[in-house]
Amino acid sequence: MRVDTTPNVYKPGETELPQEIEERVQRRNKAMGPSYRLAYSEPIHFVRGEGIWLYDANGQAYLDFYNNVVSIGHCHPRVVNAMRQQAETLCTNTRYLNDVVIEYSERLTSLFPKELSQVIFACTGSEANDLACRIAQFHTGGDGFIVSEFAYHGTSALAASMSPNLSPTMPLGRSVRTVPAPIADRHTRDLNAVGAKFEHDVRTAIAQLKRHGIKPAALVVDTIFSSDGVFPDPAGFLKGAFDAIRKEGGLFIADEVQPGFARTGEAMWGFERHGIVPDLVTIGKPMGNGYPMSGLIGRPDVMQKFGDNARYFNTFGGNTVAAANGLAVLDVIRDEELLANARTVGGFLKQGLQAIDSPFVNDVRGVGLYCAIDIIDSDGTPSGKGAQAVVNGLKQKKILISATGKNENSLKIRPPLIATKQNVEHFVDAIRDVISELNL
Amino acid sequence: MRVDTTPNVYKPGETELPQEIEERVQRRNKAMGPSYRLAYSEPIHFVRGEGIWLYDANGQAYLDFYNNVVSIGHCHPRVVNAMRQQAETLCTNTRYLNDVVIEYSERLTSLFPKELSQVIFACTGSEANDLACRIAQFHTGGDGFIVSEFAYHGTSALAASMSPNLSPTMPLGRSVRTVPAPIADRHTRDLNAVGAKFEHDVRTAIAQLKRHGIKPAALVVDTIFSSDGVFPDPAGFLKGAFDAIRKEGGLFIADEVQPGFARTGEAMWGFERHGIVPDLVTIGKPMGNGYPMSGLIGRPDVMQKFGDNARYFNTFGGNTVAAANGLAVLDVIRDEELLANARTVGGFLKQGLQAIDSPFVNDVRGVGLYCAIDIIDSDGTPSGKGAQAVVNGLKQKKILISATGKNENSLKIRPPLIATKQNVEHFVDAIRDVISELNL
Repeated sequence: MRVDTTPNVYKPGETELPQEIEERVQRRNKAMGPSYRLAYSEPIHFVRGEGIWLYDANGQAYLDFYNNVVSIGHCHPRVVNAMRQQAETLCTNTRYLNDVVIEYSERLTSLFPKELSQVIFACTGSEANDLACRIAQFHTGGDGFIVSEFAYHGTSALAASMSPNLSPTMPLGRSVRTVPAPIADRHTRDLNAVGAKFEHDVRTAIAQLKRHGIKPAALVVDTIFSSDGVFPDPAGFLKGAFDAIRKEGGLFIADEVQPGFARTGEAMWGFERHGIVPDLVTIGKPMGNGYPMSGLIGRPDVMQKFGDNARYFNTFGGNTVAAANGLAVLDVIRDEELLANARTVGGFLKQGLQAIDSPFVNDVRGVGLYCAIDIIDSDGTPSGKGAQAVVNGLKQKKILISATGKNENSLKIRPPLIATKQNVEHFVDAIRDVISELNL
Repeated sequence: MRVDTTPNVYKPGETELPQEIEERVQRRNKAMGPSYRLAYSEPIHFVRGEGIWLYDANGQAYLDFYNNVVSIGHCHPRVVNAMRQQAETLCTNTRYLNDVVIEYSERLTSLFPKELSQVIFACTGSEANDLACRIAQFHTGGDGFIVSEFAYHGTSALAASMSPNLSPTMPLGRSVRTVPAPIADRHTRDLNAVGAKFEHDVRTAIAQLKRHGIKPAALVVDTIFSSDGVFPDPAGFLKGAFDAIRKEGGLFIADEVQPGFARTGEAMWGFERHGIVPDLVTIGKPMGNGYPMSGLIGRPDVMQKFGDNARYFNTFGGNTVAAANGLAVLDVIRDEELLANARTVGGFLKQGLQAIDSPFVNDVRGVGLYCAIDIIDSDGTPSGKGAQAVVNGLKQKKILISATGKNENSLKIRPPLIATKQNVEHFVDAIRDVISELNL
């Protein structure tokens, strides 16, 4: 029997589908493995993307406030051209010298604090996190990992073993401990207490690991706690936990796959908002605006033992085409001033969401262009059903978002960095309407 | 201290480099992590590729008899165009319906025996192997894996734990056992004994696992034993080991990352030469002719339990651009009749290599466009130094190959599938000259 903990998925047999959709679902089920899931109870068939818009097979436009890979907009011509030019010229790997990968490595590391001076390329966030954890094991001699209670760090065996978000039926690793997400007390709503509580929980997890003879290797956190439900505030709250793990000889690994590349509007990387310099940082998703690429940026001394003992070669990671893509994305973020745009338009978005007056809206959180709204029912209970109703209601209005969190009741709102105030007005009007029709 | 078991790498300080090379090496060392290695004692700076040729910064052409990713030739225009067109139109993931990924899944699975009817996409061979092993764990309830003694299956924590090739200082997994590569007895040279010996060794490994209370999950083999030194013959020799592992409830996982996509000239996939139908097959490297993509093809019943319990989503795996790339590669293999070309030109290559008369050539193996030559010294001892001398000698003649195997003495010869008889003549003349100058 299939166990689904992902919100917003198509469940076979539950919905009668239009013929052109049904036919494609059948073909897919036949040729693609049983681990695939489609979004929405009635899946969407997209055929074209441009900027913030996706178009379905009938030419209907959807406002994309969800897909965070194509972060500088669908099919950005500068990126497509850079990819094409490099693919026409040379596609080869890091075992040969090539200027484009050197230039990209220099550009990328220049965007980090000076301690984080070296990069290793891979193809997916899973690979980057898996590698970061292996490096932490070599450097510390430990293999204990601490993650948040609904974290998602990837799909490799090691990354999945520290991704409670994946499924309750997918076992966590024996050397993995979880800590509660950094959520403000629901009565006091005191954000100032978040840091001390999170630090306390991390200290407790460290003590538990040690009690079982497991040496801590790293605290691994997505610095915006995306899959836990988006918890960015207050800026700086990670400092205590950061100090705690490092005092015990463990590393702090910042998973920037989601918050990175200007998403928060306040800094290029989520950890910068917390006034800390991680030992290792992983990046991915928006790095190539769709081209499969990821990376690990770290302190050379931390990477040295692994580098000496465990050769790492990634066939495609850091290939010339990936590097050309990555350079074009950095150029666009700079030239289109997308960090500033994420800040101003993101602020406007959060303000708009906070102004929604509804008994079913429990909390609005967010920074830059990453926001969440918790939906509750009349009794104040987290309502995954309510969140799903909002997701589907917005789909009726041709707008894409999704939901996340332990209770599946946190709406996940992530427009591309190119979103305008006008896009946000359109979105806020629509979600206000949908929420006003809730009856939970 | 750095431990290098990779043949043919640049060792810092060992060689005085031309200024333009030295400068780039320095910039690379500064910005890229310590696990990177450059090929050749004097690294090469390539700027362009076309067909079977790579061009360095001085415009010097190199005949590429090594790079097996760009298997249908560097910068193939049909693939570049397919990629560009799709990237201009839509780049999105498998959570939406899209015809290109459905079509590609159908095309790809149609190239396999009918039992292997479903595919899951990922981005690298490591990811595909890691996933295959996780699926085997779920399906069998075991976690014991058997691999060949110098196997390479990838760089994720799990894949690396079953890749003895990576480094003697990189620990193998506690539930991993190795078996000797399927090498003919050096005295009798009896190829017919290879299968029985390999089967016996696998049975012994299974018994060892069970003695330690470890349930076998899978026997994982690269069906051409690339990193062990290339052992394709006799066709059919895997059958006994295949039966042995399945009798114990374990799976047979064929790692086709290197032998797959027509490389052997005799079949699209290496396992077909052995008259077996694996439970799971992994593919990668040449799948997108450079675009980062990989896949897992399997029996639906074997994938079901994993699919039910452990959601698998790969952000980039099976995205629309990857699928368009993959389709173009399949079109080219079909339209340019590259399977037949690999067979005929590969046969011509093997014949040419076998005709080389030298006391330092111990054995010539190969099938299709994947050949190996073992180099020995005057005492008959495997000579990694000798192999390296051939690799460097060919580099002087502007031809690229490399070396592999436990003793680093097996020359690895892998021209693209588009190689012509003329290319092979050029190559065989050159390697004959280089070998004739050996003094070991």
